[in-house]
Amino acid sequence: MKIQIINGPNLNLLGTREPSIYGSRSFAELLEELRSRYAQVEIDYYQNNSEGAIVDKLQEVGFDYDGVILNAGAYTHTSVAIADAISAIRTPVVEVHISNVYGREAFRHHSYLAKNCKGVICGFGTDSYRLAIESFLNQ
Amino acid sequence: MKIQIINGPNLNLLGTREPSIYGSRSFAELLEELRSRYAQVEIDYYQNNSEGAIVDKLQEVGFDYDGVILNAGAYTHTSVAIADAISAIRTPVVEVHISNVYGREAFRHHSYLAKNCKGVICGFGTDSYRLAIESFLNQ
Amino acid sequence: MKIQIINGPNLNLLGTREPSIYGSRSFAELLEELRSRYAQVEIDYYQNNSEGAIVDKLQEVGFDYDGVILNAGAYTHTSVAIADAISAIRTPVVEVHISNVYGREAFRHHSYLAKNCKGVICGFGTDSYRLAIESFLNQ
Amino acid sequence: MKIQIINGPNLNLLGTREPSIYGSRSFAELLEELRSRYAQVEIDYYQNNSEGAIVDKLQEVGFDYDGVILNAGAYTHTSVAIADAISAIRTPVVEVHISNVYGREAFRHHSYLAKNCKGVICGFGTDSYRLAIESFLNQ
Amino acid sequence: MKIQIINGPNLNLLGTREPSIYGSRSFAELLEELRSRYAQVEIDYYQNNSEGAIVDKLQEVGFDYDGVILNAGAYTHTSVAIADAISAIRTPVVEVHISNVYGREAFRHHSYLAKNCKGVICGFGTDSYRLAIESFLNQ
Amino acid sequence: MKIQIINGPNLNLLGTREPSIYGSRSFAELLEELRSRYAQVEIDYYQNNSEGAIVDKLQEVGFDYDGVILNAGAYTHTSVAIADAISAIRTPVVEVHISNVYGREAFRHHSYLAKNCKGVICGFGTDSYRLAIESFLNQ
Amino acid sequence: MKIQIINGPNLNLLGTREPSIYGSRSFAELLEELRSRYAQVEIDYYQNNSEGAIVDKLQEVGFDYDGVILNAGAYTHTSVAIADAISAIRTPVVEVHISNVYGREAFRHHSYLAKNCKGVICGFGTDSYRLAIESFLNQ
Amino acid sequence: MKIQIINGPNLNLLGTREPSIYGSRSFAELLEELRSRYAQVEIDYYQNNSEGAIVDKLQEVGFDYDGVILNAGAYTHTSVAIADAISAIRTPVVEVHISNVYGREAFRHHSYLAKNCKGVICGFGTDSYRLAIESFLNQ
Amino acid sequence: MKIQIINGPNLNLLGTREPSIYGSRSFAELLEELRSRYAQVEIDYYQNNSEGAIVDKLQEVGFDYDGVILNAGAYTHTSVAIADAISAIRTPVVEVHISNVYGREAFRHHSYLAKNCKGVICGFGTDSYRLAIESFLNQ
Amino acid sequence: MKIQIINGPNLNLLGTREPSIYGSRSFAELLEELRSRYAQVEIDYYQNNSEGAIVDKLQEVGFDYDGVILNAGAYTHTSVAIADAISAIRTPVVEVHISNVYGREAFRHHSYLAKNCKGVICGFGTDSYRLAIESFLNQ
Amino acid sequence: MKIQIINGPNLNLLGTREPSIYGSRSFAELLEELRSRYAQVEIDYYQNNSEGAIVDKLQEVGFDYDGVILNAGAYTHTSVAIADAISAIRTPVVEVHISNVYGREAFRHHSYLAKNCKGVICGFGTDSYRLAIESFLNQ
Amino acid sequence: MKIQIINGPNLNLLGTREPSIYGSRSFAELLEELRSRYAQVEIDYYQNNSEGAIVDKLQEVGFDYDGVILNAGAYTHTSVAIADAISAIRTPVVEVHISNVYGREAFRHHSYLAKNCKGVICGFGTDSYRLAIESFLNQ
Repeated sequence: MKIQIINGPNLNLLGTREPSIYGSRSFAELLEELRSRYAQVEIDYYQNNSEGAIVDKLQEVGFDYDGVILNAGAYTHTSVAIADAISAIRTPVVEVHISNVYGREAFRHHSYLAKNCKGVICGFGTDSYRLAIESFLNQ
Repeated sequence: MKIQIINGPNLNLLGTREPSIYGSRSFAELLEELRSRYAQVEIDYYQNNSEGAIVDKLQEVGFDYDGVILNAGAYTHTSVAIADAISAIRTPVVEVHISNVYGREAFRHHSYLAKNCKGVICGFGTDSYRLAIESFLNQ
Repeated sequence: MKIQIINGPNLNLLGTREPSIYGSRSFAELLEELRSRYAQVEIDYYQNNSEGAIVDKLQEVGFDYDGVILNAGAYTHTSVAIADAISAIRTPVVEVHISNVYGREAFRHHSYLAKNCKGVICGFGTDSYRLAIESFLNQ
Repeated sequence: MKIQIINGPNLNLLGTREPSIYGSRSFAELLEELRSRYAQVEIDYYQNNSEGAIVDKLQEVGFDYDGVILNAGAYTHTSVAIADAISAIRTPVVEVHISNVYGREAFRHHSYLAKNCKGVICGFGTDSYRLAIESFLNQ
Repeated sequence: MKIQIINGPNLNLLGTREPSIYGSRSFAELLEELRSRYAQVEIDYYQNNSEGAIVDKLQEVGFDYDGVILNAGAYTHTSVAIADAISAIRTPVVEVHISNVYGREAFRHHSYLAKNCKGVICGFGTDSYRLAIESFLNQ
Repeated sequence: MKIQIINGPNLNLLGTREPSIYGSRSFAELLEELRSRYAQVEIDYYQNNSEGAIVDKLQEVGFDYDGVILNAGAYTHTSVAIADAISAIRTPVVEVHISNVYGREAFRHHSYLAKNCKGVICGFGTDSYRLAIESFLNQ
Repeated sequence: MKIQIINGPNLNLLGTREPSIYGSRSFAELLEELRSRYAQVEIDYYQNNSEGAIVDKLQEVGFDYDGVILNAGAYTHTSVAIADAISAIRTPVVEVHISNVYGREAFRHHSYLAKNCKGVICGFGTDSYRLAIESFLNQ
Repeated sequence: MKIQIINGPNLNLLGTREPSIYGSRSFAELLEELRSRYAQVEIDYYQNNSEGAIVDKLQEVGFDYDGVILNAGAYTHTSVAIADAISAIRTPVVEVHISNVYGREAFRHHSYLAKNCKGVICGFGTDSYRLAIESFLNQ
Repeated sequence: MKIQIINGPNLNLLGTREPSIYGSRSFAELLEELRSRYAQVEIDYYQNNSEGAIVDKLQEVGFDYDGVILNAGAYTHTSVAIADAISAIRTPVVEVHISNVYGREAFRHHSYLAKNCKGVICGFGTDSYRLAIESFLNQ
Repeated sequence: MKIQIINGPNLNLLGTREPSIYGSRSFAELLEELRSRYAQVEIDYYQNNSEGAIVDKLQEVGFDYDGVILNAGAYTHTSVAIADAISAIRTPVVEVHISNVYGREAFRHHSYLAKNCKGVICGFGTDSYRLAIESFLNQ
Repeated sequence: MKIQIINGPNLNLLGTREPSIYGSRSFAELLEELRSRYAQVEIDYYQNNSEGAIVDKLQEVGFDYDGVILNAGAYTHTSVAIADAISAIRTPVVEVHISNVYGREAFRHHSYLAKNCKGVICGFGTDSYRLAIESFLNQ
Repeated sequence: MKIQIINGPNLNLLGTREPSIYGSRSFAELLEELRSRYAQVEIDYYQNNSEGAIVDKLQEVGFDYDGVILNAGAYTHTSVAIADAISAIRTPVVEVHISNVYGREAFRHHSYLAKNCKGVICGFGTDSYRLAIESFLNQ
């Protein structure tokens, strides 16, 4: 089983950026933990601050991988292009968020992506990524 | 660890009601499976079609249990009373949905409850409940 | 042929409440008249002020009866739970209103229920109930 | 008793136009059936695709007839002129729709006419017209 | 000086229709009075219930007459076609209303026509027409 | 003089729930104080988490009592059924709130009930209830 | 017959301010012309840039004068206080505008005052004031 | 204890203006009654039709007085300046209204002031002022 | 191949009306040019200022012709009746506009017709009609 | 004559992505056909999933080429940057869409780009591109 | 060079009012500093809590001074009268704010004044005034 | 002191693009002038048409530089990603605009970035950049 994690803009600053919202652990630490816990799964990781690069990556992995875990960050709320890419590919995509977006600014309550995804997991800190992996294992 | 699952209106018809949206398995079957898989967790179950009864139950379990898994169904979109109950209690609540509500009518895209919950899990069929249990185990 | 009439909140006060809008005849008188006029139809009657109780009753009758005549009163405008119950059952439901809701406050112009019902009859005073019975007879 | 049925734009295509929504029977067949069933009622029929012509007809019959059954079709949602004509005349008007407009596009959920009518009957196929006749008989 | 008065839908019922709003004098009486008071002005009169006919008349008089006094009635609030005709012709148009539309339903507060007209006179009963004639005399 | 106090959802948790908003005194203590201060008034108390139960209670006391003091909590913002019950009964109702709802979430700024009540008292902590009693004494 | 003209903010700059919109004649010149043309009418004039001063003046003249001609300028679109003053007095008020406000910014299309006035005259340049005087003469 | 009552625009006409809404007693009579009933309280009174004057008065009394009772009338719905003044001073302010503003035009349902006030009392006729005094006594 | 061109309100003034927007060539000249360029196509032309007449014409040609080119002018933005006629017929309809409607008033940005048409061509001056013919030739 | 075709995000998947909406032919095939049909035109092609890259390309070709045919895909609905680029360059741009965007989700009905373009062609499948070329040939 | 600083409502409380938002220095101190730093500029200062007084002052200085620095405070968000005064005068006006209004309540995000001003400077504490002076020096 | 200027999409065309809005001087000329005037400040410059590249640059300089001057151009109105980057870094950011965005299209009145910036300077032509430098010098 091959799963691609895609992180959108500013998520490369995890651990540094607004720790009260996003926690103080870097994504590298999380990734290591997930790979050791789910050794049977090949977990690839990609981060980019550009909307177009995320579309490119979705197209690249979207016909072979078994699942995509996508935290599109700010693009969740503004990108029709990423939403269209999710529809255009075959691999199911799970939308995740670290923070509980519903407790933040109103513009973060709307996701262009959600309706095209398999499901949404939001608010569990970085454990949201693990739950997304779980969601692919149990099908 | 004690977890209370609360299901809201019309979820007693699971397996019967609109199987194309909600699947054809009854909740009893799912419950059995969850209890055997997570034997270390005491999983209580409650279903009611009344908003007030859900508020009552949240108050009843909300100071002792380790977690509440709440699928408030239609009340997700209309109930401030349940949202207030979630704020008023101490036990963390995870909001779950069987279907991907973001792919349905616009009024289902808004949740009064989400901002008061620990997190939201939506769209994984009945596996959403299992992921919610997972979310309590990993803390 | 078995038809269930369900009246929602405050309709138990019919004859007493705002007679300029709702008329001065009690529902009991109307019911007697309908039963004698449509002797071939078994007409059951239920009134409750609680949203959950109306959901319960719809589920109870919704797989056996030939028709439901539903005047959900205020819940017409606020209840997704009752709308979902109408979708979940098999018996067709006709939405009725005694007053012409379109000539009243703006929030009464929207019905969550209508799109899930067979049809809507509104504004004919208590004769709206008779027309709903007629609608089931002619199919 | 004299009743005028007025059909608005595109209802002359009944039986031809979108049969999945409007059925496959022409209005002429329906009219014959209604006239034989309600022999004691003089039922006149008028159809026109023009808003102004419907206003003209309402003014013409609106001081003598006992009732008007109006399916204004698309003009239901856009015509203040027809709404004003209904207010200006003395004959009571019943608004009817063949399809359940509440299950269709959002712009069909609003009627300029409804608040000036005696009542609204919607969603019963062509049986909506018969129920409207019934509504005039029972007063 | 040649002035064309154009009255829109239902204004032929003036004197009959809702006298509490529109007064009890017919337009014929008013017209006679205006013609005798402003003998130096040729005052033509046209009424039609059809939007298209009002567009036709505006085009017909719109290159020769010195002024048009237009009470488009309900079409004031719904007709882009009449608004476009006013822009397309050379004769200046004054929009008049008998009643004070700002004290009535919200949809009557908006005029598609006003911005293309020379000016608006509203709320003076049938004296609004006389003031409109005055507005052409004083230029 | 007989006055009924009705408290809506989650107000049974007073003293426990979000003390920074609602204070730390239980309603029982307040009630005792009010009864001893206004000994000439019979003060009945009722709390329920269900919308329907509040409608029931309003109907029960609404034709005999001299006044109702209603803190409908969350239902203030969502219940047309309670608003209708207030209109349907004869006893005047005063809407009270402990917190200043205008300083909280936007959805708490709108009350379905207020326009049907005698008046509104909001923001004085539990002293809002005493002021409501005062409002009935001075008529 | 005594008529009070009240001009609101920035209208003291008439003749200077944005001549393409408001013309190049000062109000003093216009006033002289109106007084000589309507010698039988006592025409008083008042201009003030303050909302409160306009309320004061309306109260002062509002129980004796035969008419008020009010060009409230910017306050037309923002002042509930002036609207309330118009309701509170006995003298009828005519709202006038020099420019065609419907052809300008959207916020100028709404008047808080219009519904409380006898009528509205708008877009005739300074001739709007003369038409307003005419409207009082013909009653 | 020193309390300042501030009345906004048009409230100087109390007893004269729209008695069906505001009653027929002048404010002077009410003031006398309040001063004799609450002899222990120094009650100052100020009325002004100008927004700026109300800001001035709030600043003047806002650091010494024990309470301000503010009926800002129309400015309640339009004045950010008064709202800011309430925030800027130290004396607590209670917002009062004579009429039930929630039963009037929609623009009267919103108060810019309420969230900055200690509380709101609305709809009790002139007794609203007495209840506001009571609210300061019981702290 | 038979194609019907239908022009809506005010398009008979082409060449005269607002030349800066619509150009200075009459439609007759354009028609001649199109007929000579596309000699293999039978091109019929119809213009009417009435919404109902456009519905009539669509019904008349809508079961035989190979294509309809519809510039409904103002009715594009207001007519549900024409939109319904397009759905009701079999001949595909192409919506055309001479001007770029997206650069004009906001109400011209919405078309009731577009979703029922085969396609939309807008902004190419009168060349829009030629492109529409091209669109039928290449299928 | 030099024309640049620019395709936005996900249009590289043409032929693969949602064939029911976009057809099953790749863009390469179409391009070959267009180049052979319009041999007199130099047709350049560019596709990119990134908003910034499309801005770059528009700037690059926007001062030399005779025309740009732009299918900005999802960026049509979200990109002010591309809209600004179209304004900033000299080459006229034609907006094209393969599908009829007006029959899809509401957010696809709005184009930021259209008002800055020469025209819009939408809904003709890949033939939209050919019609755009035609639009440049006939000027 | 003569520059007029105008401060609107509640800015006289600077140094006292909400120091966390507005700082703790009085405007007098700032003024002294600005006058000594920009000795070549004559800097006049005016503060008033009344909208009308600000209009008066703008008219007074608006034809002689070289620049106006306007912090209209709350009136920024509600005053069309001040916006109109800015348009009516010749002196350029710079809008300044001490706090970052975009980080505060939504109603503070809209300025009626900005579009009529030369520019806007916002969020730099009292240094916003100095930057405004700089903006006049560099022209 | 190190300051980074970042210019967003289409600002590379400065001097070429819409000179009536943006002026006719290139940014290179301005930069030279600023560097010579503020010799004590190290001023770095970066321009990119891509949203992601701007996020990258903000992250790169956002922990070392003393200030960022950001003219995000079109991305001001559409980019949550850039807004998040501003929050995530430590260097204060000043938002600048050359034109007065409040006098342009409505969608340019809203900035996603402003609330996360230190302040906003808008409308002073290219002098806005100098004022931004000034704002960093005076702290």
